[in-house]
Amino acid sequence: MNPPIPPTIGVFDSGFGGLTVLRALLPLLPNANYIYLGDTARLPYGSKSHDTIARYAVSSAKFLHEQGAELLVIACNTATALALEDIQQALPIPVIGVVEPGAQAALSLSTKNLQCHPERSAAESKDLRFASAAPDRAPIESVLVLATAATVQSHAYTRALNALNLEANEKACPLLVPLVEEGWINHPVTDEVLKIYLTEALTAAPATQTLLLGCTHYPLLEPAIHRTLASIGHPLTIIDSAHATAQAVAAHLNLSPQTSKPIAQGSSLCTFYATDSIEKFQRLGSNFLGQPVSEVRLIDLGG
Amino acid sequence: MNPPIPPTIGVFDSGFGGLTVLRALLPLLPNANYIYLGDTARLPYGSKSHDTIARYAVSSAKFLHEQGAELLVIACNTATALALEDIQQALPIPVIGVVEPGAQAALSLSTKNLQCHPERSAAESKDLRFASAAPDRAPIESVLVLATAATVQSHAYTRALNALNLEANEKACPLLVPLVEEGWINHPVTDEVLKIYLTEALTAAPATQTLLLGCTHYPLLEPAIHRTLASIGHPLTIIDSAHATAQAVAAHLNLSPQTSKPIAQGSSLCTFYATDSIEKFQRLGSNFLGQPVSEVRLIDLGG
Repeated sequence: MNPPIPPTIGVFDSGFGGLTVLRALLPLLPNANYIYLGDTARLPYGSKSHDTIARYAVSSAKFLHEQGAELLVIACNTATALALEDIQQALPIPVIGVVEPGAQAALSLSTKNLQCHPERSAAESKDLRFASAAPDRAPIESVLVLATAATVQSHAYTRALNALNLEANEKACPLLVPLVEEGWINHPVTDEVLKIYLTEALTAAPATQTLLLGCTHYPLLEPAIHRTLASIGHPLTIIDSAHATAQAVAAHLNLSPQTSKPIAQGSSLCTFYATDSIEKFQRLGSNFLGQPVSEVRLIDLGG
Repeated sequence: MNPPIPPTIGVFDSGFGGLTVLRALLPLLPNANYIYLGDTARLPYGSKSHDTIARYAVSSAKFLHEQGAELLVIACNTATALALEDIQQALPIPVIGVVEPGAQAALSLSTKNLQCHPERSAAESKDLRFASAAPDRAPIESVLVLATAATVQSHAYTRALNALNLEANEKACPLLVPLVEEGWINHPVTDEVLKIYLTEALTAAPATQTLLLGCTHYPLLEPAIHRTLASIGHPLTIIDSAHATAQAVAAHLNLSPQTSKPIAQGSSLCTFYATDSIEKFQRLGSNFLGQPVSEVRLIDLGG
């Protein structure tokens, strides 16, 4: 029996952040081919309107389909939150976003928490916050979602989490992407900004136990977020939807995760496209991918 | 004799910052008609490449010409620094950018400083920094220019200031635009970021006396910049190129500045166009214009 032909997976983001999703996919599905597009000439999406984001995301998705993608991963929270349906309608291939896998990962964690701490279930059932839950349903756990302004305004995470009987507390954090792009990953200013955002968010929902990173730039800030949460005395379990999304892609393809192996340098497994400066994509992208980004091709999607 | 027909002036920026230039123009030339375009669907320009910025700026400039602009003001430092010649070549009307007027204002200030403090001229002539200056030329004064990454990389301010026998010390400040757009105008985090940028810049050129704001977002930070400079013990005279640019436009049109009068509410003197969310343009724009922005029209320049 011949081995299955490796699929070609398109991975799309407005910029570099989606490379964290590709980074999670590579060890999980090392035999697939990948085509990555960063729409860097039109980034950021997170501060723009639904119509503009949908227009940009659909044209980018069509490009990846034309290049041979058989499955498309929208590795951008903003594009998923605002344009997943538009992209699904525009393309004849399966399209997987990052919001639903992130919400599912929050549910798994919540279930695990309850199994480990069944006393919480009993205690929380006395809490007024859960008074409206039906007695035979699991108590509602609140998930804090940090994301861009556009993702928060779309309330896509609220819908996805509520559908799983989880509460959502969404917090827009417009300064985090610029801070990551300035390279201030471990910097007192970034810690101060995180302290302000997290304190505001946790004051609104003090019982929160889970934090979902709703932007593909934010995993680079995970150490700073842990440090800040410790400093304000409110440790949280952090969910990075990059890994949850990679798992969802593997499940969709019905492929068992393979033994982890890094891709070889100069391998043809990954093709990178960007709509703006190739040099900048290579320079910034390697931080997100965790290895050098080579052979980036410049394309013009208009605008 | 009939009064002169008021000219139609196009004002272009990637976003809202150019409204500070329009704000300076309104009292100076209250009888002109204005067409303002904010290319908000493709902002920010400041982190992008020359080719992309030139493509966006030329298409935006052509749109304003098609709407009837007889003179165009590029009220965006990044677009001026990287695409002024491209725009001038593409359009048959006069095009005025913000870099040259800003540099001229720095020269006027420098000349004034020397007239007020002639002893500086003698003292500085012994300074090694001025050793290469010809003995019959005025000593070189160093001007600190705060700007976006793209503007700094273009070195447009260095060329403009050097041509006027002034030294330039350019400093890229990528976080200032996001901080202004977050609304953190008077905020300890912004003061801390300014302290880091200004200390780095002034360590490189400690004799600096003049600070040129090389981005149209930065005038909103002028009080914070003054406060920060005082805290580090290095007060500077601040030049905002918005006013210098407005003066250059009046001089080009050979019009004497008129008595200052605010435009009437609901007047048809100003027409606003944006390529993304009208609501956001109205909300953020009023901070830059200093009065409500009404009747914004959405246009699609592609992309």
